[in-house]
Amino acid sequence: MYNFSPSTEQEELLARARKIMEEDVYPAEKHIIPGVGLPAEILKPIQQKVKEQNLWAAHLPIEIGGLGLGNVFLGLLNEILGSSPIGPRCFGTAAPDTGNTEILLKAGTPKQIEKYLKPVINDDIRSCFAMTEPDVSGADPTGIQTSAVRDGNEWVLNGKKWFASNAGLSSFAIVMAVTNPDAAPHERASMFIVDIGTPGFELIRDIAVMGDFSEGGHWEIHLNNCRIPAENILGKEGEGFKLAQMRLGPGRITHAMRWLGVMNRSFDLMIEYALKRKTRGKPLAEFQTIQNFIADSAAEISASRLMTLHAAWKMDQGEDARKEIALIKFYGAKILNDVISRAIQVHGSLGYSKDTPLEAFYREARAAHIYDGPDEVHRMVVAKRYLKEYQMKKNEELVENSAR
Amino acid sequence: MYNFSPSTEQEELLARARKIMEEDVYPAEKHIIPGVGLPAEILKPIQQKVKEQNLWAAHLPIEIGGLGLGNVFLGLLNEILGSSPIGPRCFGTAAPDTGNTEILLKAGTPKQIEKYLKPVINDDIRSCFAMTEPDVSGADPTGIQTSAVRDGNEWVLNGKKWFASNAGLSSFAIVMAVTNPDAAPHERASMFIVDIGTPGFELIRDIAVMGDFSEGGHWEIHLNNCRIPAENILGKEGEGFKLAQMRLGPGRITHAMRWLGVMNRSFDLMIEYALKRKTRGKPLAEFQTIQNFIADSAAEISASRLMTLHAAWKMDQGEDARKEIALIKFYGAKILNDVISRAIQVHGSLGYSKDTPLEAFYREARAAHIYDGPDEVHRMVVAKRYLKEYQMKKNEELVENSAR
Amino acid sequence: MYNFSPSTEQEELLARARKIMEEDVYPAEKHIIPGVGLPAEILKPIQQKVKEQNLWAAHLPIEIGGLGLGNVFLGLLNEILGSSPIGPRCFGTAAPDTGNTEILLKAGTPKQIEKYLKPVINDDIRSCFAMTEPDVSGADPTGIQTSAVRDGNEWVLNGKKWFASNAGLSSFAIVMAVTNPDAAPHERASMFIVDIGTPGFELIRDIAVMGDFSEGGHWEIHLNNCRIPAENILGKEGEGFKLAQMRLGPGRITHAMRWLGVMNRSFDLMIEYALKRKTRGKPLAEFQTIQNFIADSAAEISASRLMTLHAAWKMDQGEDARKEIALIKFYGAKILNDVISRAIQVHGSLGYSKDTPLEAFYREARAAHIYDGPDEVHRMVVAKRYLKEYQMKKNEELVENSAR
Amino acid sequence: MYNFSPSTEQEELLARARKIMEEDVYPAEKHIIPGVGLPAEILKPIQQKVKEQNLWAAHLPIEIGGLGLGNVFLGLLNEILGSSPIGPRCFGTAAPDTGNTEILLKAGTPKQIEKYLKPVINDDIRSCFAMTEPDVSGADPTGIQTSAVRDGNEWVLNGKKWFASNAGLSSFAIVMAVTNPDAAPHERASMFIVDIGTPGFELIRDIAVMGDFSEGGHWEIHLNNCRIPAENILGKEGEGFKLAQMRLGPGRITHAMRWLGVMNRSFDLMIEYALKRKTRGKPLAEFQTIQNFIADSAAEISASRLMTLHAAWKMDQGEDARKEIALIKFYGAKILNDVISRAIQVHGSLGYSKDTPLEAFYREARAAHIYDGPDEVHRMVVAKRYLKEYQMKKNEELVENSAR
Repeated sequence: MYNFSPSTEQEELLARARKIMEEDVYPAEKHIIPGVGLPAEILKPIQQKVKEQNLWAAHLPIEIGGLGLGNVFLGLLNEILGSSPIGPRCFGTAAPDTGNTEILLKAGTPKQIEKYLKPVINDDIRSCFAMTEPDVSGADPTGIQTSAVRDGNEWVLNGKKWFASNAGLSSFAIVMAVTNPDAAPHERASMFIVDIGTPGFELIRDIAVMGDFSEGGHWEIHLNNCRIPAENILGKEGEGFKLAQMRLGPGRITHAMRWLGVMNRSFDLMIEYALKRKTRGKPLAEFQTIQNFIADSAAEISASRLMTLHAAWKMDQGEDARKEIALIKFYGAKILNDVISRAIQVHGSLGYSKDTPLEAFYREARAAHIYDGPDEVHRMVVAKRYLKEYQMKKNEELVENSAR
Repeated sequence: MYNFSPSTEQEELLARARKIMEEDVYPAEKHIIPGVGLPAEILKPIQQKVKEQNLWAAHLPIEIGGLGLGNVFLGLLNEILGSSPIGPRCFGTAAPDTGNTEILLKAGTPKQIEKYLKPVINDDIRSCFAMTEPDVSGADPTGIQTSAVRDGNEWVLNGKKWFASNAGLSSFAIVMAVTNPDAAPHERASMFIVDIGTPGFELIRDIAVMGDFSEGGHWEIHLNNCRIPAENILGKEGEGFKLAQMRLGPGRITHAMRWLGVMNRSFDLMIEYALKRKTRGKPLAEFQTIQNFIADSAAEISASRLMTLHAAWKMDQGEDARKEIALIKFYGAKILNDVISRAIQVHGSLGYSKDTPLEAFYREARAAHIYDGPDEVHRMVVAKRYLKEYQMKKNEELVENSAR
Repeated sequence: MYNFSPSTEQEELLARARKIMEEDVYPAEKHIIPGVGLPAEILKPIQQKVKEQNLWAAHLPIEIGGLGLGNVFLGLLNEILGSSPIGPRCFGTAAPDTGNTEILLKAGTPKQIEKYLKPVINDDIRSCFAMTEPDVSGADPTGIQTSAVRDGNEWVLNGKKWFASNAGLSSFAIVMAVTNPDAAPHERASMFIVDIGTPGFELIRDIAVMGDFSEGGHWEIHLNNCRIPAENILGKEGEGFKLAQMRLGPGRITHAMRWLGVMNRSFDLMIEYALKRKTRGKPLAEFQTIQNFIADSAAEISASRLMTLHAAWKMDQGEDARKEIALIKFYGAKILNDVISRAIQVHGSLGYSKDTPLEAFYREARAAHIYDGPDEVHRMVVAKRYLKEYQMKKNEELVENSAR
Repeated sequence: MYNFSPSTEQEELLARARKIMEEDVYPAEKHIIPGVGLPAEILKPIQQKVKEQNLWAAHLPIEIGGLGLGNVFLGLLNEILGSSPIGPRCFGTAAPDTGNTEILLKAGTPKQIEKYLKPVINDDIRSCFAMTEPDVSGADPTGIQTSAVRDGNEWVLNGKKWFASNAGLSSFAIVMAVTNPDAAPHERASMFIVDIGTPGFELIRDIAVMGDFSEGGHWEIHLNNCRIPAENILGKEGEGFKLAQMRLGPGRITHAMRWLGVMNRSFDLMIEYALKRKTRGKPLAEFQTIQNFIADSAAEISASRLMTLHAAWKMDQGEDARKEIALIKFYGAKILNDVISRAIQVHGSLGYSKDTPLEAFYREARAAHIYDGPDEVHRMVVAKRYLKEYQMKKNEELVENSAR
């Protein structure tokens, strides 16, 4: 039923990744510029080492330079990388580029692959994804209003986007726009590649947010008669949602995997401080409330970890894992926030300060309840799938019974 | 790392068990007498069928008539049996007999095995376990006060026990008593087999409790100069705690496995009723609060299931799984209670009535926070183990660093 | 804004009530027969004492033999009575009679008052209330299906009711039935008085439930061409909902008041046991987890108490307190369950046994989430009222702004 | 028992405060510089208006320029001011100055009052409070290590302090230091006034923290042979803890009062957005999950409000309110965080951005679990007081019983 064990060679890769984290990534954290990330002179050598050790862009298929080892392996790897905000970038698997490469891989023309995919994979250029709109609930992507109208050899795009993460550093954006307003809800939109700098593609403002792990901001973008070549459509007309779904589904599980890294690190910090810090004459570790924090966190992290690997394993079997992915998205988000918060509480004022990574983890983690679909939507998705399954089973029984 | 998959032949056994549950066990539930169980004329034929289909007493090694298929398999089987309060008894794995058989297997003399173990395995006689005492916290078994003093060819037992489950139906009790008051805390006590009916072994009262799944009550027992043959000691003098630990550890995981069955069944009932029952013109299933109940329950059951199987798998690997067992004991107990409570809430007054099994599940489940060690002790155990591990790692690092 | 202080004379009444509880009611608890209550020979002398001390039926206006001291006073009194399951009956304020007397007071004809109200007030006869139906969600009373059709000088009632508490001991029932199926949803039904024993009024079964504080059961009742005199209508045709609302609103606050008594008593038991019981060499009271239980319970009880008195006080001011009543109904229900559960946990196995009142409190308390409207409905009511208020304020601002 | 009603003239003052908030304070929020506050040219005119309307420094006695209207009134006023991070400063009641003024009022010499107290009250200068130390748990103030040794006409201070809020803007600091290391734990320390700029008083660094409501930072300060005049002791030698307790107690309730303002504003924003924003074709307000958020928040805010006013009222009666203050400190902190978090969730990405005040509220609120004593300490304080009360009652009963 379940088999989450890495092979011996995978174990070896994971150990190598762990070593780079300890030797290079954690020590580099002190150079992080909030909202910007690592300076290139620090980042590039680490990336080079990762490439040399054959750990670069592990999420990609072998053909395109990745490792092609499946989702359980990725879960175990991302758990390691996720323990540092700069881990994924150092290992060539940083969002939102990863999601964009997956779309380009699936739907890109040879020319698009050459021009956009390859340099992104190599981290020579960065990219962003512009789907969410200020006037439409992000929880309901069928409502988007940005339009793309064909005019001769060009598409003309008009509309507003926001929370386009990384736009400030990107060379191009993947933009979702309605191409056929009269089609069925999930066939109205298409995806387009827009080069940054195209006239009419206006970077309005970097929306300030609670967390500062993003390197390239979260931008509001206005499209004013932005004209792009006809060939810049990604996939076929009307395929926008299909591609978005392909991008978001695995993206959610990637989040859950990285959360594990954050949880583990918070757990480590919590225990280490509890052993060290004294109050009223004894270490915090001897207070039962602190012990409860540790035990509850251990249980929840274990739950989170097994559920994430289970979802990944199901994906590897080629089975439908949407329910499992939705489950861990909302359940894991709560655990993530709770574990970090307990670690902060153990540290007291120190935990509230920026002297430990916990404070930044806490701010970043609040977004986990929101991005890639709010908790409320994932709960609904899970419930509706179960309800449908039970309804179908019931209907079958009715048919069977009436057939007797 | 993790592999919880049953083999094809195990799958076949599980399917067979599921079939017996549906065809025989669930339909027999209407004959349950609360606090007593199934009448023999209903129970015995089901047990016979289970034996014929080679599913009897699956927890035991092959040599003694069990299946010997390991703990992961037992988890999957007990998940099925646990969905009915009479499932375990029908399949020859009912507590407290199972725990007692495990001690007898480990420590019993050939004569004890012949006289006590074999008839219990075959469900010809029943047994009970008398450890907890009214004047001593059950969370601290080293404090027990009942004494056993050697007098010639006999042991003379004095003291009070309570919550000896099943005593009302038992042919013998396994009694824990202090044989060496001056020894180290975990070497003070020994175990004894006492035949019910031995003079001085007084069944004082069946302590009324919230739940009524027990068939033979929860008894207070007084031992007044109760004399038993010297040969009735179980194992060696001073081995009482070692044997108790051996009994309780796996017992806890068995509880967690059966809770899965209760959760699954509550989940089924919740969804089926939500699809059927209407309020304000639409099925309950369409209300978002009910959908949230379903999604949260699905997440928690998944967590509980994976953690239970994980602990079982670790035991099968011969690894120390005490942390994992403690985790699922307190974490699973909460989930169990919450899932049942949500299922009741969906049913409204009906859920509060005895017209569905949920009401009895709810009362029974409250004990899960208490029996085999309260939540508080398991949290403490988990925390202390983590703290010790981290302390040791820290010490090693100090040593390494000072060696440089 | 808020003034919850009893006058000196009210303080004196409360002290008197407290004394009777301690001297007579608590000691009588050992005579309770679960699901039946106190035997008359124990009950009647206590009731007599209460009457002599001018504390009988305090909820009623002075004219009809009550105290007429308002809802804040009743809150403080019910907090005292609610600490014992037999308190309200001993003091002449037991449900469902109290609710029925309120309807009779408001809507009863002089003849009905003489025949039904007065003997109920005096506890000479008992009564029940039959509104909920098995085929209709109790959360949506507008859906009831029982019909009452006028036939000459009689009403003919047909339909099914269930969870009619106390029916097994009642002399009459107040029955809700549809008299005008085509009217607006809240004007379709009327209330009727039906004497127990009237042909066609069939007590089908006492529905077994989790709790056993009810004295007269929770009955399923079928009405088969049950004919009653035309004069037995209560109030006017179509007033059924208006009267039910009048009955249920104050009923909900009465529940909340009595819950306080249960919480207080559970809190007392928790602390007393924590001081007394030792584990691992020290009293439970010294364990931080137990201290957390105490502190959290103290906070929640304080919240519950102030919110209940606040709602009562608002009612006394003649203000609309529906929001406040709905708030305390669902918020208090959770607190009630949590406080009892913690008290049980502190007691361990003993708390799970029937040796303390906690076990019965726990079973009874589960119904608090359901009766008089499930939590889900009260949450919805609160939210909709707030939403409406804010929407109205917003509309006013729009009007104001456009007028400028 | 409870009377929280403001008088008519108090109502009038509160209305005036509300008007200033709406007309001046909220509109000024857009000028806030995070971590710095309002520029003087915006702040000063508002402060002037507050002074003219006789609302300045309301927490102080009349003699010294305050309103002297008691704690219930202050609760109601602070609820209003607390809804904006700049409210308290605009109204002359900003921490940490308020706490410092209270100490100066109690213990200051006429000269200290003239030199330090009066200009602080008038907001001509600012001050800070340096108690917490990096090497000692803030939850255990008896452990502080900074020393003050008398040398002729001077005190010589040595040690480290941190989280001295506002130090960056202050003219003086109140510093706690050990004057008698051998005294009883609560009599070891004294308080001193140290002018900023005194040699040896080194502002090491502004400790970056999660929230940015503080105007003058949270500083680490080292005292290196810092010499101050002997007359700069505050109160008597050994009175440090007495004065600190006097400062912190009312400070905690002031926090709780202001939290109410934050909760109210978050609640407003949540509902207003839920009414406005649509998803899947209907306003968020129509989704049951959102309605549950509203209802749960309403209940919790009501609890928080009543408990805060209750504690204030008890203080006004001259009664010991330490238990009530501790209760609302930890209970209110949780509610504060939960209400803000729900408001953010309703806003989705917008709530996570800095486009609404919710994001800043969320970061600030996390500290509520920590400052002025962590939750864990307040829970312990409450529990120990209850335990002591019950133990005393029990002892009295034992004495009474033995006397009979």
